[in-house]
Amino acid sequence: MPDTPDMLQITPSAPIQTDQHGNRAKCLQRLVRLELPVPLSVALSFDTVRGLALGHLPDMTALAGIFDDGDLLSVRSSSQAPDWGGPGSVLNIGMNDAVAARIAKEHGQAAADALYLSFIRSYAVDVLRLDEDLFAAPITPRLALAHFEDEMEDPFPQDVETQLTEVLRAMARAWEGTSARLLRQAKGAPADAGLGLIVQRMALSIGKEETGAGVVQFVSSESGFAQITGRYLPQSQGRAALSEAAAQFIETDERGVALEDRCPKQVEALRQAGKLIRTRLREEMQIEFTLMEGKLAILDAVRVPRSARGDVRIAVDLAEDGVISRDDALTRVAPFTLNQLMHRQVNPEGPKDLLTRGIAAAPGAATGKIVFTASAAQSASSKGEPCILVRRETSPEDIRGMHAADAILTERGGMTSHAAVIARGLGVPCVSGATDLQLDHRKKTLTVPGRRVFHEGDVITVDGSSGEVLVGAATMIEPAMGGAFATLLRWADDARDIGIRANADTPEDARLAQTFGVDGIGLCRTEHMFFDPIRLTVMREMIFAEDQEDRKAALERLLPMQRGDFIELFKLMEGQPVCIRLFDPPLHEFLPGDRDGIRALAAALDLPVSRVAARIENLQEFNPMLGMRGVRLGITVPGIYSMQARAIFEATVVASQGKEPVVPEIMIPLVSAKREVELIKDRVDAVAAAVRNETGTQFTYRLGVMVETPRAALRAGEIAEHAAFLSFGTNDLTQMTYGLSRDDAGRFMSVYVNQGVFPEDPFQRLDRDGVGELLLLGAERGRQARPDVTLSICGEHGGDPDSIAFSRAAGFDYVSCSPFRVPVAKLAAAQLAISDTIES
Amino acid sequence: MPDTPDMLQITPSAPIQTDQHGNRAKCLQRLVRLELPVPLSVALSFDTVRGLALGHLPDMTALAGIFDDGDLLSVRSSSQAPDWGGPGSVLNIGMNDAVAARIAKEHGQAAADALYLSFIRSYAVDVLRLDEDLFAAPITPRLALAHFEDEMEDPFPQDVETQLTEVLRAMARAWEGTSARLLRQAKGAPADAGLGLIVQRMALSIGKEETGAGVVQFVSSESGFAQITGRYLPQSQGRAALSEAAAQFIETDERGVALEDRCPKQVEALRQAGKLIRTRLREEMQIEFTLMEGKLAILDAVRVPRSARGDVRIAVDLAEDGVISRDDALTRVAPFTLNQLMHRQVNPEGPKDLLTRGIAAAPGAATGKIVFTASAAQSASSKGEPCILVRRETSPEDIRGMHAADAILTERGGMTSHAAVIARGLGVPCVSGATDLQLDHRKKTLTVPGRRVFHEGDVITVDGSSGEVLVGAATMIEPAMGGAFATLLRWADDARDIGIRANADTPEDARLAQTFGVDGIGLCRTEHMFFDPIRLTVMREMIFAEDQEDRKAALERLLPMQRGDFIELFKLMEGQPVCIRLFDPPLHEFLPGDRDGIRALAAALDLPVSRVAARIENLQEFNPMLGMRGVRLGITVPGIYSMQARAIFEATVVASQGKEPVVPEIMIPLVSAKREVELIKDRVDAVAAAVRNETGTQFTYRLGVMVETPRAALRAGEIAEHAAFLSFGTNDLTQMTYGLSRDDAGRFMSVYVNQGVFPEDPFQRLDRDGVGELLLLGAERGRQARPDVTLSICGEHGGDPDSIAFSRAAGFDYVSCSPFRVPVAKLAAAQLAISDTIES
Repeated sequence: MPDTPDMLQITPSAPIQTDQHGNRAKCLQRLVRLELPVPLSVALSFDTVRGLALGHLPDMTALAGIFDDGDLLSVRSSSQAPDWGGPGSVLNIGMNDAVAARIAKEHGQAAADALYLSFIRSYAVDVLRLDEDLFAAPITPRLALAHFEDEMEDPFPQDVETQLTEVLRAMARAWEGTSARLLRQAKGAPADAGLGLIVQRMALSIGKEETGAGVVQFVSSESGFAQITGRYLPQSQGRAALSEAAAQFIETDERGVALEDRCPKQVEALRQAGKLIRTRLREEMQIEFTLMEGKLAILDAVRVPRSARGDVRIAVDLAEDGVISRDDALTRVAPFTLNQLMHRQVNPEGPKDLLTRGIAAAPGAATGKIVFTASAAQSASSKGEPCILVRRETSPEDIRGMHAADAILTERGGMTSHAAVIARGLGVPCVSGATDLQLDHRKKTLTVPGRRVFHEGDVITVDGSSGEVLVGAATMIEPAMGGAFATLLRWADDARDIGIRANADTPEDARLAQTFGVDGIGLCRTEHMFFDPIRLTVMREMIFAEDQEDRKAALERLLPMQRGDFIELFKLMEGQPVCIRLFDPPLHEFLPGDRDGIRALAAALDLPVSRVAARIENLQEFNPMLGMRGVRLGITVPGIYSMQARAIFEATVVASQGKEPVVPEIMIPLVSAKREVELIKDRVDAVAAAVRNETGTQFTYRLGVMVETPRAALRAGEIAEHAAFLSFGTNDLTQMTYGLSRDDAGRFMSVYVNQGVFPEDPFQRLDRDGVGELLLLGAERGRQARPDVTLSICGEHGGDPDSIAFSRAAGFDYVSCSPFRVPVAKLAAAQLAISDTIES
Repeated sequence: MPDTPDMLQITPSAPIQTDQHGNRAKCLQRLVRLELPVPLSVALSFDTVRGLALGHLPDMTALAGIFDDGDLLSVRSSSQAPDWGGPGSVLNIGMNDAVAARIAKEHGQAAADALYLSFIRSYAVDVLRLDEDLFAAPITPRLALAHFEDEMEDPFPQDVETQLTEVLRAMARAWEGTSARLLRQAKGAPADAGLGLIVQRMALSIGKEETGAGVVQFVSSESGFAQITGRYLPQSQGRAALSEAAAQFIETDERGVALEDRCPKQVEALRQAGKLIRTRLREEMQIEFTLMEGKLAILDAVRVPRSARGDVRIAVDLAEDGVISRDDALTRVAPFTLNQLMHRQVNPEGPKDLLTRGIAAAPGAATGKIVFTASAAQSASSKGEPCILVRRETSPEDIRGMHAADAILTERGGMTSHAAVIARGLGVPCVSGATDLQLDHRKKTLTVPGRRVFHEGDVITVDGSSGEVLVGAATMIEPAMGGAFATLLRWADDARDIGIRANADTPEDARLAQTFGVDGIGLCRTEHMFFDPIRLTVMREMIFAEDQEDRKAALERLLPMQRGDFIELFKLMEGQPVCIRLFDPPLHEFLPGDRDGIRALAAALDLPVSRVAARIENLQEFNPMLGMRGVRLGITVPGIYSMQARAIFEATVVASQGKEPVVPEIMIPLVSAKREVELIKDRVDAVAAAVRNETGTQFTYRLGVMVETPRAALRAGEIAEHAAFLSFGTNDLTQMTYGLSRDDAGRFMSVYVNQGVFPEDPFQRLDRDGVGELLLLGAERGRQARPDVTLSICGEHGGDPDSIAFSRAAGFDYVSCSPFRVPVAKLAAAQLAISDTIES
């Protein structure tokens, strides 16, 4: 045979290359090398197939000559990566009047007709693109041949060479089609990706003894645990047939007929083949096989399709069995896969009544009754009733309600709206920006155009992983964070070389972070501690204080509460670093926004409603993001930071008793000038000295800066003179660098991303060109001024694999993200470290 | 005599240095060199005086020995710069019992007693800091001497050496006092500024013939025009006496007694001295002189104090008389001085009833009746009644009312609030951030704590130059933009080497800009054109359009209006460049904010109130600054920019007919990514092609980008690939670089500036360290990508001398500022160019 690189018989020694013949060809060669019963197969190279599409035929006579006369042949596609697709297989090439007559004689006319008709159809419709209706059942082969001749003005070709030529040409052209190209490019294929083709000898699907086709795999696609799964159908061909009800089990099974019952030896051979393949191909494979009068043939093997949890389990099991290394296991699981193991998921197999779609803002799914207010959510929760909090948008006042809700649905806002950020922090599923929703808070109804009106108490399901909102309850898949998940994370911890901390605002968050195992708390936003109703009242008294004395009194009442928070946090973190951000939001976030709230507040403070309303109006801002918050508040209302510093230091003293000393980290938010840091540092130092003096206890602490204005990044050099660490708050930094409020961006972000104005939403994927340059500038200048400055990213981007890659490359010490993103971050960090080891 | 550098007799050749002996010493030496009759004077150096303060005496015997026995001496301070201050003069040192007796014999006891008592008082109270009450009138010298001895336990010193020593010591110590130091540092003196002292022989102030003291100057302090002004008092000493009613005129004057009537020769000598001094000292000086029995002595000369208009006139006259060069004249006038000539000023001499203070947000002053709404302002204006618009804060809806008002007063906002920026643009006086004000819009009252309630119609005066608000009408000084002002600006145009354009939004603004002479329009904010009531209605129809068709229809109605604006602008600017910024603000700025407005709008659009309210709410943003505006609106609502581009091009065709072709500049606002520019450029290019085709006329235009996000500055390289010019919008760039909304910054900016957190308000003075770095980065990258890119600053900073210096140093092509800031900008630019010429 003309064994050129363009047309190679698949033998153990043939020079088959994945990047010339495709993945399937290479896989078949591996099976051949394992001496498994693979039928005679020939691989056509990418170049050959490219030539075919341009009309250059290979030596077809030679190709046909490799096979025996009367052989039936199949052609399958073999792209470089399995998920780049390719045209469907064509079977039974070589069928003609003579073969049909022979079959009729041996197996009866019906069998011969069925096989011949199936090929005529496939050849006419799939290969030559004739009208499908012409060949629709009921029809006989003779009529089909007549229709073919009418259409083509030529009789149906009887020689295998002509048939095979047309099949190969059609498949080569199909690969070049526009939609096929777009589809594979979406999966990462290059524009010039090639297609290989495999011509394989087929067994006749009918025979006197045990004859048929099947697939088998040795693990469960769902769980990843070892378990023989598969189907077999006697007297059939191809995968398609296996979905028929008549298909049988492989192993003996009480639910029905199984191949093993009749052919135990062949099934045992399959088991042995499976073991061999797993070990030598280092992967769980699904095997396509045939029996021809009792004789086993293995036609093909593909990677077992698998769920997220199956994926993790298979990778871990392969490593634990020594088939692959732990590093291999870590690189085989895509980081975001872990998200699906941490949250309940809507069962994709279950029935669905889609109500509307929004942005998949916080993963997981939950079913519950609709509530429209935070207090209704709390009340439902207290009765143990699952509920879905539905709001136009959420605000800090809603936090306790968000905590109580099983899921959150908002009409407005994007991936980084308040609702989305808080929900991800809390681990509560959230769909935001469901713009179709029409809410009537007065009537307490929810409508979607064209659908019935929903009332408080109606049951819906929110799927924060897909962005879907479903009517009624959906069937769910439960999370799976133990077992293989935990093992993989442990390995990731061993492999990674950048710190992963969690953002945790409350002891509850910190506890959650600890379950994932973190290197500390990278961002504790203290303001969230003030939304507890008792504290909120004191906060409001502080805001409404007439004079310094009253303000001081209110702050003194907050002090023990804050101290208590910090003691608990420090104890929970057992000496790991805890980075506490001083109070950040504008004061008006603590005041009610509606008439009822104002009246209640006036009553509580014993003040006239008009005064309360006036004060609230007075505190309103045009652009609160850019207003009186962060260090600006710290400087103009000094008591707040002093109280917080005292709470931190007193907690440090308490939590250090009899333990390793706690070294708290104190972070100043929204800095834009060095002098801000100096002023706060002086004040914090003074508080520390006072607490040391009062308690007679020594302690140390680290003061740092949250770099979230472009100016702070630019001036990081002089800022670092007073800051032991710089933590980049990439959310705000992105907002300011783009001049883009994340709360308002939802209105046009989808248009922008769709039109490619921004390649991606910069709140989701760190903008390396703009924000990234500021990060690098800031890091470089900070390090120049203070070589041992600790550098990190905190905020939403912290958990994104791309940002972790960026931070690692920039030599940052750690990233901090919400607890629920820690597993993804760890795996991504591990993969980066492994990839560097391989490259170096 | 010991003529050491520490103690120098002022002779023509003595090595007197301004930076060692002070300004007055140097000036006296110049008078001596002119052979004017200056009494014997000795200069003590800064080092000598520093030594005195530390207790090291110079050789006092030698010093006293320079003068004759029985001479009376004066000591005056001589700081390096005239306005750094210094302790007051001490006269008559040397008075004692013997001199008193001699005077009594020659001129009578009363004269002797008066002179002796005056010195004892001055020595006891000013020099030795004894209790003033002890020496209060009525008292005799004898009693005063007794009190002195009681207090000091020593008799009153009779020798001139002791007296002089104490005087010098006291003056040296006074210079080191804290308040004196703070005062001079506020005027720009360095911390270690020195004081020189001058000891001068005095004439006795009493004599038989014409004896007395006077001051004279040869120009009017107010107007700067030539005019002998001065006072003379016979038988008196020192400047203080000249304020007495008995003081006489210098030149013959019909209003009263004049020195010239008695001593024409001496007055002629003064005139000659004045001419000589003006020519040789190259400045208008005020001369202090005495006559001693008819003999003229010139004691001192200081720069004539002068008003802003006097300052300009004097500089221009000196240059026109050839005394100084034009460049000298340009450098002598501080740029901000010109502001006072462009606006009415409250007469500082007039009576004042201060109601409250705020931020001096837009210069000039006006008196009028209080109005609380824009419509009331328009109505008052239509009746020809001056009015003051008082608002909590202003919004774009108020613009027509602001136009109609004679001044604006707001409770909130800083130097760069909406009210302040618009007022400066309109040239309307404005006081913003008058936080003491309590407005009740419902009752239409204005209160300041502790003052009566003011109602609509009550008259107040707003002084936008000082930030003061006065009760009732104040006397005013009118602007003076002709004459010397115009001459100086013409010279500035010749001298400067950076372009000055004006921000002009309407033909009216452009006309104003042309009166100051500009190099074009650097920023035409097209949105202000839509606040005219007819246009506003169409705008709102556009915003409420149900579909593309309705929106298109509304835009088509706006097209001819916009075209008309541009035709007028282009014609007015006569071929000078006009840079038109495409629509920038969020759409909600065009919608009413209150119930009444919403009801009226619903009626006008024939829509239910609830729908209008819902749409308005739907358009609200959390941070409008960072929201759906600028190019984001241009991309998501494409019709707006297409309409504007068409209006610009059609106007170009019309305005170019029979004239030099107009080359419009089109600027895209709020860019943060290159792709935004590409998309808009494609659209604008297409509109240009269509208009060329429809009109059969060729024209060119320049498309550029307003760089106002930090990201646009960082990515200026790739942006410049598609932009012929980059104009830095430093207002927004400052807001985003600091993360600081100018509308909200008022709340803490004063605390920040007072505590030195920011050295200055970055909205007033360009922040060179942060924002400046982005400007330099952007300019460098833009130039690298496109060497001929035009670079400029537009916005509030454009008119600030410091920003002009920055822009010039960075090689920018022009700055653009509001028309009323053009004169200041021109003068500042001229001074920079001159200063470079001198240095190079």
